Amino acid sequence: MRATLMYGAGDVRIENVPDPSLKHPTDALVRITASCVCGSDLHPYSSMKPEDGPARMGHEFIGIVEETGSEVTTLRRGDLVVAPFAISDNTCLFCREGLHTSCAHPQANFWDGEAEEGGQAEAVRVPLADGTLVKLPVAPDSTLIPSLLTLSDVLGTGHHAAVMGGVNARTSVTVIGDGAVGLMAVLAAKRLGAEQIVLMGRHTSRTDLGRSFGATDVIATRGEEGIEAVRALTNGHGTHVTLEAVGHMPAYQQAIGVTRPGGIISRVGVPQYEEAPIGFSSLFRHNIRLAGGPAPVRAYIEELMPDILDGTLTPGRVFDATTDLDGVPAAYQSMADRETLKALVTP
Amino acid sequence: MRATLMYGAGDVRIENVPDPSLKHPTDALVRITASCVCGSDLHPYSSMKPEDGPARMGHEFIGIVEETGSEVTTLRRGDLVVAPFAISDNTCLFCREGLHTSCAHPQANFWDGEAEEGGQAEAVRVPLADGTLVKLPVAPDSTLIPSLLTLSDVLGTGHHAAVMGGVNARTSVTVIGDGAVGLMAVLAAKRLGAEQIVLMGRHTSRTDLGRSFGATDVIATRGEEGIEAVRALTNGHGTHVTLEAVGHMPAYQQAIGVTRPGGIISRVGVPQYEEAPIGFSSLFRHNIRLAGGPAPVRAYIEELMPDILDGTLTPGRVFDATTDLDGVPAAYQSMADRETLKALVTP
Repeated sequence: MRATLMYGAGDVRIENVPDPSLKHPTDALVRITASCVCGSDLHPYSSMKPEDGPARMGHEFIGIVEETGSEVTTLRRGDLVVAPFAISDNTCLFCREGLHTSCAHPQANFWDGEAEEGGQAEAVRVPLADGTLVKLPVAPDSTLIPSLLTLSDVLGTGHHAAVMGGVNARTSVTVIGDGAVGLMAVLAAKRLGAEQIVLMGRHTSRTDLGRSFGATDVIATRGEEGIEAVRALTNGHGTHVTLEAVGHMPAYQQAIGVTRPGGIISRVGVPQYEEAPIGFSSLFRHNIRLAGGPAPVRAYIEELMPDILDGTLTPGRVFDATTDLDGVPAAYQSMADRETLKALVTP
Repeated sequence: MRATLMYGAGDVRIENVPDPSLKHPTDALVRITASCVCGSDLHPYSSMKPEDGPARMGHEFIGIVEETGSEVTTLRRGDLVVAPFAISDNTCLFCREGLHTSCAHPQANFWDGEAEEGGQAEAVRVPLADGTLVKLPVAPDSTLIPSLLTLSDVLGTGHHAAVMGGVNARTSVTVIGDGAVGLMAVLAAKRLGAEQIVLMGRHTSRTDLGRSFGATDVIATRGEEGIEAVRALTNGHGTHVTLEAVGHMPAYQQAIGVTRPGGIISRVGVPQYEEAPIGFSSLFRHNIRLAGGPAPVRAYIEELMPDILDGTLTPGRVFDATTDLDGVPAAYQSMADRETLKALVTP
């Protein structure tokens, strides 16, 4: 079959690879009908060293179950399923608490950690299929597919940011970043009742989409200037919650600047730093809290899917390009150039 | 009057200073009947440069109101009062939310930030007296005074750590540090219902007191060895909540090591660092949260005082030495040498 491999920064190729096959009785084989390129794929696309490649790519997909291992009980051939970006058994101590990204099962993993599998491909072997996959009550060609595909990562990740930030009707919110996750964080904050949602981003087409998702204010400036602009909107205090959907240090520093005393910075952009300011003058002085991490999107699918099925949420609007597998390398470049927001892949 | 001044690391002196007097109509003058030396006083005692001194010392005290400004309405001459370590108006936006340490009033301050006032003295001018001071329903020579004095800082600080950590009957807790705040964090965690409380500390007399306050386990080792010991007590996972009551980097690193995926590190030890690890491999990977800061102890006095008055809580047991003002310099050294846990000062 054909699959996407990254050989290093800026070097993505579509190649023939061995067809996947069942390895464990809890596996399922899935023929992929829709997948996509993630903002987090752009981190290695900008920095991956050739000696670390080639790597199979893609951690968001919808597909049709083709074969199931002998111990798979909840799925059967022909089921249309969506896969979260993390493999989990959905039964361990941490999964039961809704923290599927810390699943204790030995086969639990991020798709990005699976050397021989990836979602930007024609097919995939899914470990712990009962725990990982969720059936979709639509046809593979449903117009809801783009929105349902966001359940695999970006919608659940934006929702996780908002949940970990404690967003509710009484909290003001800043969202840092106008990528797909930032826009989903806006949508999620709106859904949880926030009345003031400030979106910090510089791409008008994206921030316009953010406004339609619920952003009440848009700040196009960054750094100290951007911080002052958010403070000016919030009586000088900053917002109760800041959802950081970028992952670079300037975004974290900006988050400190726009967060109100006693507030929460909730990070879902994968940090591209390890050390950062958290001492007296940054977080401690005013009891600013820090939360977030890889979103346990599996935990949120049952809650979010009905809002997609009934049309309340239309997160699929983040896809502004569609390509087949051949077009995936160009889609990476277009997303890196900030020309495409998020590319849907139909293998 | 006589007061305590720090001239630099290791150099604490008792000197004559001008008597305090009313400056603002919202001030009160208080004759101090009980104060104490704080673990946080030991930070400058180990590192203060002579050019930053001399500094008036002491931020915890009980005393008798001697004079009130014309706008003070809730206090009068003769009232026995306790003062939190932060001055606040108790009416601003942040005070109303219980975050008195971020009070927006221009005169709000930490006592440690008041150049000409301090609690280790015979008397003090208290700004924003209505907001800051809380009346005590006992006599100045009550046997409850040591326990009531802990309302000014260490009990409220330990309680804040536990509250910010989300401690309840379903959470396991590690407390890092067997100083007065660490022991108060044990007491507070027990009060909030925690059933497993692991105290990390090396001083047997202190950890014994910690056991009597509610610690179920004591770990005397530190670093990787200490982390492994806590994990061995918690099915390998670590505790849901870690209360960090030290403030030095090794304590923070230890906190990361003993905190369960999805757990919270709540810091009340004043950080002696600004940058620290918070990236993918420390906090982010397993959604570990970070909370804490200067405790708004004013917010907690009404909740905690009844438990002292009825004998449920005996936090005053952290005082293992009593001295007059002349003995304060020796008390600093004895606390720095870890011979005294916490010294009560009766001017």
